[in-house]
Amino acid sequence: MYTKEEAAALVEKYITGLKFPAVPGKLYAPIAYSLEDGGKRLRPVIVAMAYNLFADDVEKCLPCAAAIEMFHTFTLLHDDIMDNADIRRGKPTVHRRWDANTAILSGDAMMISSYRLLQQAEPALLPDIMHEFNKLAIEVCEGQQYDIDFESRDEVSIDEYMDMIRLKTAVMIAGAAKIGAIAARASAADCEAAYRFGLELGLAYQLQDDYLDTYGTEQTLGKKIGGDIAESKKTFLTINALHEAGDATRRAILATFRDSSHPLEQRISRIRTIYSSLDVPDITLRAIDEHMDRAVDALDSLSVGAAKTGPLKELVATLRNRNK
Amino acid sequence: MYTKEEAAALVEKYITGLKFPAVPGKLYAPIAYSLEDGGKRLRPVIVAMAYNLFADDVEKCLPCAAAIEMFHTFTLLHDDIMDNADIRRGKPTVHRRWDANTAILSGDAMMISSYRLLQQAEPALLPDIMHEFNKLAIEVCEGQQYDIDFESRDEVSIDEYMDMIRLKTAVMIAGAAKIGAIAARASAADCEAAYRFGLELGLAYQLQDDYLDTYGTEQTLGKKIGGDIAESKKTFLTINALHEAGDATRRAILATFRDSSHPLEQRISRIRTIYSSLDVPDITLRAIDEHMDRAVDALDSLSVGAAKTGPLKELVATLRNRNK
Repeated sequence: MYTKEEAAALVEKYITGLKFPAVPGKLYAPIAYSLEDGGKRLRPVIVAMAYNLFADDVEKCLPCAAAIEMFHTFTLLHDDIMDNADIRRGKPTVHRRWDANTAILSGDAMMISSYRLLQQAEPALLPDIMHEFNKLAIEVCEGQQYDIDFESRDEVSIDEYMDMIRLKTAVMIAGAAKIGAIAARASAADCEAAYRFGLELGLAYQLQDDYLDTYGTEQTLGKKIGGDIAESKKTFLTINALHEAGDATRRAILATFRDSSHPLEQRISRIRTIYSSLDVPDITLRAIDEHMDRAVDALDSLSVGAAKTGPLKELVATLRNRNK
Repeated sequence: MYTKEEAAALVEKYITGLKFPAVPGKLYAPIAYSLEDGGKRLRPVIVAMAYNLFADDVEKCLPCAAAIEMFHTFTLLHDDIMDNADIRRGKPTVHRRWDANTAILSGDAMMISSYRLLQQAEPALLPDIMHEFNKLAIEVCEGQQYDIDFESRDEVSIDEYMDMIRLKTAVMIAGAAKIGAIAARASAADCEAAYRFGLELGLAYQLQDDYLDTYGTEQTLGKKIGGDIAESKKTFLTINALHEAGDATRRAILATFRDSSHPLEQRISRIRTIYSSLDVPDITLRAIDEHMDRAVDALDSLSVGAAKTGPLKELVATLRNRNK
């Protein structure tokens, strides 16, 4: 069994070892640039660790793991164009460093590159792996579209929001876990349990991101906090706050979002005070814990026994601590 | 054996019968919109006809045929954003009808949809088919990047131009023919001959497009003529003309390209006169015929016998007549 650190080291070595053609430079350079300094590599690590639940030769699943990371990074690249974002992981986004057309085309090449990695899966397993990969890929696009649609809507229900983050964030982590299991020839029941594990972990992970945007630090969130407040973004916190608030408090929340005349620090602090009065932090922390618990339950439902699930439970514990 | 008209009818029925989810509407509506009124469907018809060289049950290859058409249409959708094009096949482009972000995201979903169609191939053949599809897909991106790179270069050689159109246009037609052959379990030698057929046909087809932009009609080209002249685009004609011309004629050609003060009709007519003096139309028509001949030679090198290759030879003859 690999620890999560050992799995991460294997994944990192494989991804940083990927080679791209030298020409045409404007097509391939942005792909290498986007894959460098890639953060936690959560999704490919989950592929490798899910594989390792059922089989020892983890190197065999690394092309599939890298395919998931490549696809994830492609979605960030195109999302950054759509969001007109300047910075990603501390560096200029591709459409700023180059231009929008380069970002569109190299993003397309990046998606194709993810399928080229996937194609290296064992031939007999490729149909099932590709089915799972295509499913998560189209669902991520649906999630991104709902996220865009929600921006121009006045009201979004908590259920609608949860379904959006299921598509936009959780299905990729769920698919990562299931693809790892499929690649290791796990039973259908175990593949489904791996999917449920990833789905619950992914939901918890996105709710944490929402929470940390208001209550975290630049270090725990991985980027400057308050971005959701600055952009009046609908998040689990916003939607719950507006749901719990009376008319006067609703107006105060919306006014604070829109009020760009005051420093962001001050507005974050004001929003925190209002949210606390509405019990929003506790509601959010409870929801995160609930989904983290369900992720652990899914691991316990696997046929592999408690010794095998140790490393993934440690991963859950580490992620759970992000917001502590 | 299916005639080319029968193959086209089968393909059209399959593609127009494809169903997409109703929501999220802004993701899926542009896909259906882009696939409607899709022109000749040359690429999927070639998949079906190449399949039919080796097997009778052509319906079986229709998902692969549709995957190629879906991918082709996706490339047009993203190219239209990059080229800032207003009209495609007589209708507003997706980024005009909706907006650029919608065109980026629904294009991404369209590429994924092409892989979802591909996934329906016979499982045992999927690895080979996916290998071929991924190869043409990444090469098309490389071709598009070279095309963009050439715009800002002063000089492009004829060899460089031919390599660009090989990637941007011909490999997709070559891959279509080869995927049809693979799907019908043709021998490796026949699959390679199918590829050569498509490659030569694709090169001839792109040179015809270049020719018809100056010498065709709106009907033969399928869009308004003179677009390449209006945009000072490097084409087989331009590159040959500048290669053949002396200094004074070079200057006259470049001045006519840039001179937007005169009506396009007048500029096309002036360019025709100069090109004729440089033998450019004959050079181009000879090159088209040469590649068409090589496409027929590739068909003759197949193991299937002359009776089987009749319909594809008719397709070549029909395409050859486009510029007559």
